[in-house]
Amino acid sequence: MTKINENYRKLPGSYLFTEIARRVTAYGQKNPDKRLIRLGIGDVTRPLAPAVISAMHAAVDEMGTMEGFRGYGPEQGYDFLRQAIAEYDYQARGAEIAPDEIFISDGAKSDCGNIGDIFGVDNVVAVCDPVYPVYVDTNAMAGRAGEYSEAVGRWSNLVYMPCTAENGFAPALPESKVDLIYLCFPNNPTGAVATREQLQAWVDYAESRGAVILFDSAYEAFISDPSIPHSIFEIEGARRCAIEFRSFSKTAGFTGNRCAYTVVPRDLERGGASLNTLWNRRQTTKFNGVPYVVQRGAQAVYSDAGRAQVRETIGFYQNNARVIRAGLAGAGLTVSGGENSPYVWAKTPHGMGSWAFFDLLLQQAGVVTTPGAGFGPSGEGYIRLSAFGGAEDTAEAVERIRAVL
Amino acid sequence: MTKINENYRKLPGSYLFTEIARRVTAYGQKNPDKRLIRLGIGDVTRPLAPAVISAMHAAVDEMGTMEGFRGYGPEQGYDFLRQAIAEYDYQARGAEIAPDEIFISDGAKSDCGNIGDIFGVDNVVAVCDPVYPVYVDTNAMAGRAGEYSEAVGRWSNLVYMPCTAENGFAPALPESKVDLIYLCFPNNPTGAVATREQLQAWVDYAESRGAVILFDSAYEAFISDPSIPHSIFEIEGARRCAIEFRSFSKTAGFTGNRCAYTVVPRDLERGGASLNTLWNRRQTTKFNGVPYVVQRGAQAVYSDAGRAQVRETIGFYQNNARVIRAGLAGAGLTVSGGENSPYVWAKTPHGMGSWAFFDLLLQQAGVVTTPGAGFGPSGEGYIRLSAFGGAEDTAEAVERIRAVL
Repeated sequence: MTKINENYRKLPGSYLFTEIARRVTAYGQKNPDKRLIRLGIGDVTRPLAPAVISAMHAAVDEMGTMEGFRGYGPEQGYDFLRQAIAEYDYQARGAEIAPDEIFISDGAKSDCGNIGDIFGVDNVVAVCDPVYPVYVDTNAMAGRAGEYSEAVGRWSNLVYMPCTAENGFAPALPESKVDLIYLCFPNNPTGAVATREQLQAWVDYAESRGAVILFDSAYEAFISDPSIPHSIFEIEGARRCAIEFRSFSKTAGFTGNRCAYTVVPRDLERGGASLNTLWNRRQTTKFNGVPYVVQRGAQAVYSDAGRAQVRETIGFYQNNARVIRAGLAGAGLTVSGGENSPYVWAKTPHGMGSWAFFDLLLQQAGVVTTPGAGFGPSGEGYIRLSAFGGAEDTAEAVERIRAVL
Repeated sequence: MTKINENYRKLPGSYLFTEIARRVTAYGQKNPDKRLIRLGIGDVTRPLAPAVISAMHAAVDEMGTMEGFRGYGPEQGYDFLRQAIAEYDYQARGAEIAPDEIFISDGAKSDCGNIGDIFGVDNVVAVCDPVYPVYVDTNAMAGRAGEYSEAVGRWSNLVYMPCTAENGFAPALPESKVDLIYLCFPNNPTGAVATREQLQAWVDYAESRGAVILFDSAYEAFISDPSIPHSIFEIEGARRCAIEFRSFSKTAGFTGNRCAYTVVPRDLERGGASLNTLWNRRQTTKFNGVPYVVQRGAQAVYSDAGRAQVRETIGFYQNNARVIRAGLAGAGLTVSGGENSPYVWAKTPHGMGSWAFFDLLLQQAGVVTTPGAGFGPSGEGYIRLSAFGGAEDTAEAVERIRAVL
């Protein structure tokens, strides 16, 4: 009899977005005349940049001709894209990353999930709280998380690093022994960023203990403060202890176009094995590369026109973030994030629970947010608002919220 | 200290295609004036169908507008594509498969590799010999294969099902207990197909033992014999014991476009768990869907024009297969495959080894093939030839081989 992976049985339901959808649907049925504004979901809304569109059309044309057709590409991605990334995203910022350390993929979610393949099941995993659920769920599937307790909303074998107002949403270095450390800056959901000094402390910590940092910088394009590093590889020593996940999803609006990349430095070894070699083996065995057309689109993000166009779109979203942040602060809420991030993290008023405040804003303002409790126990008492909507909608949502408060 | 997945250390090098490349490069350096013809690799060479190109252009245009832009799509794929697949690939052949049993992905290789996520490590896995290496390597990575012996070219815990001339390249039902059974028809590398009766025997076997068949039908479009099933789900009982992998790679030339799908029936349960639910959880947690533009291209494969165009390209490759098969048979080689498959499986003459015959054809005919031994011990004494080249090249390669023999 075939045995299933028993770890799957331990997973709680994907409660958060299902429950939001249920409540939103119920509201819509009771209030068919009310127009909802959605600041909940972390998905972009602006079209792909003209430079990307042109490059994709040209690539589609190539694929329709005998001369231009491309079959299987390199599993690791085409050199033209790996080189552009190495040059613009790393070398331009003083981070020495070579093209063969960059693995193009269909998404940071895939890579964050699949990276566990190359690590043993007996590693101790540390995650922030609140946290992007993919880090947690994929480790639970692999058997690293232990047992889930509904009562405390935590897994028995994970080390949780609370990110709270008290520590400025900057997790403290773990006191217990950990082997794999997931960090995400700019953070989802809190919108917090890490300074150079904070990142150096993490790298030093990981290096001294032989731990590996899994660094998710999917939101780096939203950093406006020039002192904040965009990559862990801007930090001395990171090449020996870190893997970085990046994506075109939020940088260039590729959520529906699917392109990302993971950087595994050649200096990173554990147990005498090169993690670059292991990840290469994983990808060449279980993955067959990203569509040629999509990789040409991603390459165009680095053209002069592409960079200018993408920057303009990021600026559009950054302005939304400012509007949300200033509007809610002006209404008396305690807010953080939104300055170097597309997410604003707002404390609920009067000690209200996340879901209660979510309901209040849904029912009385017709605005959909995300309850912070859905990202982990330390998210209780917060909501997340996303800057990825339209400018008018965002302004109206903020006005409606202010009116309710 | 972070521990790596120790199973990776047990993997032998990806010897086959690396070694072929090494020998081909050496030949090219010694013979710079000779034109090589490559019938080794299983990659398509004809451009995408005009209907696909049009659909992709239209989708790229949509992605460049506020109204048409699509962000995150459903992880399982868009309904428009799942419905077309259910209708044309299944219901039209009498197989009752519903759209929500179809999961769109970026490749059959990915799905064949990732499917192991939902199964326990303690399942006994059966594979054909010779075999597509991904089934073996991914199970080795997961810890199901045991130890590899270079001497016998096999893993200690896998159950190998020899496919030889004696059994007509049709594996016998295993005598020992197995839980997961990988089958691939039309087969890579032998080009063999399975009759309805043979598949029924497999389904009955799996059903009676509670095993699960992992059925790879990536090459079904090459079946010309109307009595041969294209899908395991044409077989009574398969909905309770099988998962099927399909791809647009060989069907519609999508190797560089990346689109495939996996069918997990709702009737398939093990240990009280629905495998459809488990796979859905895996995909929604570790995957974020296929590019919108690519899914629109795949949908166009099912349009009237798309079906006619794709059929024409398949016919082109089928003709190559006939030329290879007839030519080598006429030269006195024992050949199989190539009638319902893009692969011809040729016995080496005079008991010559796979690699020796590969070298002979490379050195004396300037033709690149694939040594059967690279697919497993039972592939020794065979070579694989692919029908995915150009028509003139294929004819010339066959003439060159005949001249050598």
